[in-house]
Amino acid sequence: MADLRKVAVVGVGNSKFGIRNDVNVSELTFEAVKPSLEDAGLAAKDIQFVALGSVGAGAWYEELLPAVVTGEYCGLTGAGLMRVEAACASGSAAFLTAYSAVASGQCDTAMALGVEKMREIDTPTAMEWIGRAGYYFWEFHNFGLTFPAYYALYANAHMAKYGTTEEDLALVAVKSHKYAAMNPIAHLQNRITVEDVLSSMVIASPLKLYDCSPMTDGASSIIVASEEKARELRIDTPVWVAGIGYSSGTANLSKRQDFTGLEASVLASQRAYKTAGITPSQVDFAEVHDCFTIAEILAYEDLGFCARGEGVKLLREGQTEIGGKIPVNMDGGLKAKGHPIGATGCSMIYELTRQLREEAVEKNRQVPLKNYIGLAHNVGGTGHYCYVTILKR
Amino acid sequence: MADLRKVAVVGVGNSKFGIRNDVNVSELTFEAVKPSLEDAGLAAKDIQFVALGSVGAGAWYEELLPAVVTGEYCGLTGAGLMRVEAACASGSAAFLTAYSAVASGQCDTAMALGVEKMREIDTPTAMEWIGRAGYYFWEFHNFGLTFPAYYALYANAHMAKYGTTEEDLALVAVKSHKYAAMNPIAHLQNRITVEDVLSSMVIASPLKLYDCSPMTDGASSIIVASEEKARELRIDTPVWVAGIGYSSGTANLSKRQDFTGLEASVLASQRAYKTAGITPSQVDFAEVHDCFTIAEILAYEDLGFCARGEGVKLLREGQTEIGGKIPVNMDGGLKAKGHPIGATGCSMIYELTRQLREEAVEKNRQVPLKNYIGLAHNVGGTGHYCYVTILKR
Repeated sequence: MADLRKVAVVGVGNSKFGIRNDVNVSELTFEAVKPSLEDAGLAAKDIQFVALGSVGAGAWYEELLPAVVTGEYCGLTGAGLMRVEAACASGSAAFLTAYSAVASGQCDTAMALGVEKMREIDTPTAMEWIGRAGYYFWEFHNFGLTFPAYYALYANAHMAKYGTTEEDLALVAVKSHKYAAMNPIAHLQNRITVEDVLSSMVIASPLKLYDCSPMTDGASSIIVASEEKARELRIDTPVWVAGIGYSSGTANLSKRQDFTGLEASVLASQRAYKTAGITPSQVDFAEVHDCFTIAEILAYEDLGFCARGEGVKLLREGQTEIGGKIPVNMDGGLKAKGHPIGATGCSMIYELTRQLREEAVEKNRQVPLKNYIGLAHNVGGTGHYCYVTILKR
Repeated sequence: MADLRKVAVVGVGNSKFGIRNDVNVSELTFEAVKPSLEDAGLAAKDIQFVALGSVGAGAWYEELLPAVVTGEYCGLTGAGLMRVEAACASGSAAFLTAYSAVASGQCDTAMALGVEKMREIDTPTAMEWIGRAGYYFWEFHNFGLTFPAYYALYANAHMAKYGTTEEDLALVAVKSHKYAAMNPIAHLQNRITVEDVLSSMVIASPLKLYDCSPMTDGASSIIVASEEKARELRIDTPVWVAGIGYSSGTANLSKRQDFTGLEASVLASQRAYKTAGITPSQVDFAEVHDCFTIAEILAYEDLGFCARGEGVKLLREGQTEIGGKIPVNMDGGLKAKGHPIGATGCSMIYELTRQLREEAVEKNRQVPLKNYIGLAHNVGGTGHYCYVTILKR
């Protein structure tokens, strides 16, 4: 491995997440791009390369080429442009791509964008497509496995092996809603109780409605720059990319070794820790991929925040809340901030950056920082893709 | 701009292009991956990062996550994985992404894959979607502009301004079919005459059936490695990435300045020449994006192989054939080798590499090399995206 060129996050922006039928995909993207440019002190024409994470292009929203359509609307035409897709990890894949463009020395400024409109035309289509996020022919078409059912397999296996309960799963949802209620950009801002979760409709046993992240529209924009450019921009508190790790899993769940963790998360995080030169205990706080409540518990273990099987202990003790050992998803997570699948990865970086700068306007969500290190964990499919991004101020 | 880490192309493979209902998307991809690994002397597990270019995932072919599905089939699970999409330039976007992963120092081996199955389930859907490759709401939905119609606008403008004729357009098709007939992987291997083109069905005047590239299935695989890794692999004739340039154009054609050239091609090529430190006259041969015959003539001019308006002269004089000033599309081009849209960019790199190694088995297609420099020009949409890749032995 060669020495990596240093890359800083110099601007971030995020749209309001929610049901956004008030805007089209370009307008939604602009809501993230504009504040990110202002944050960086750059004009749109200064951006040399753009990677857009989006999944539903041409399917559950209408534009087949969202990168060019939103690019034109946001004044980015002329930059290098591509769409990247890694299912629900598309935003992190876009971030990696923008990072790599700068880290390789090709350019000095790049933008990672994520956008998804999931509620616009055809939400049932979106649901069917997400069900295909594995091996279509074998597992979806032949066995009718849907996406909640994939994670239900994991939930059942974890419950059987480690004694995790439905109440434990509910605790994740309660925590997410609690913090989302403090986050003005979050989709679901209602506080809920364990009882609310347990009494909600069963989707794929043991997962109930409130164990599932919502179908959300949203956009997020992250601007990265070389060290020299960051200095030139006089960024007060540049946040540096300390390491990115990635891995992937089998398309067929039937080929997985077990269902109590995501191997791709383990491998991706190990690679990210190695590149960053840190151990999990040095991470101050994290954004993890809680598309379903069980996924957050798996993440605690896969990322090494606790030993295998002890995720629930961490949760029950409140160690993943502010004041605990490792606050997780202080923005409400996918579960309550919402999960516009192409945007989620960038939105995690948005949250990490604001927390690391200690500039969150919602001061009651600010995590205490010791090492000034935050981690984002973004999963595509059921561990089909995984990206772990570590930032350090 | 920082110094770029040197990256070599160390292995290439390409499936047979054509109507490939005999294989599924994974099998088709394997046809390209296997020979590329053998060429490089690597095992699948040695590949650290994979970028897959594909457009029709979940739409006109069935798998929503082709990167994981084909990755599992080809033994690539565990590598970093993403799909990239830049319409018909997706293959080049994948190549850039794999290149950047190595050039940035993240990894030492990466694979750029391109695959498309356009004939499988629903070719009319593919045709409609390709028609959306611009600004859906305004130009496709309101005005009914289809993809051949976009390029017909350019053809008419070029004819009006420079006196280009329908016979000139036909000459491009005749040349492409001539060389495709010598290329065993090409889709259309029949030689045709100018009269055949002129008498074929009008698609979007002045473009006729034989002015259009076919709907083709195919896959292509390119393995890149760091300089140290290339040395370790004892590659006899490594081919180096000398420069990559990219740019983009407006989504709306109505916002373009004129219709006699693609501005994105001009900008992307200028950036690529600058990075490679060469002028257009140093390029020995090129692969250009001839999705329609007019597009090849535009490319001669946009890439600086001749002055503006003189593309037709180059063509009439045979300067873009073997023995001419700058042989173009000696593999038959998109027009006759075929255009599986996600694979095309990688397949261009495949052809450049084999020509630069002087190892083409079809000796009558081998171009004479002076500077050992080849250029690939890959366009997405109608100049919505453009990637220009320069390789040097």
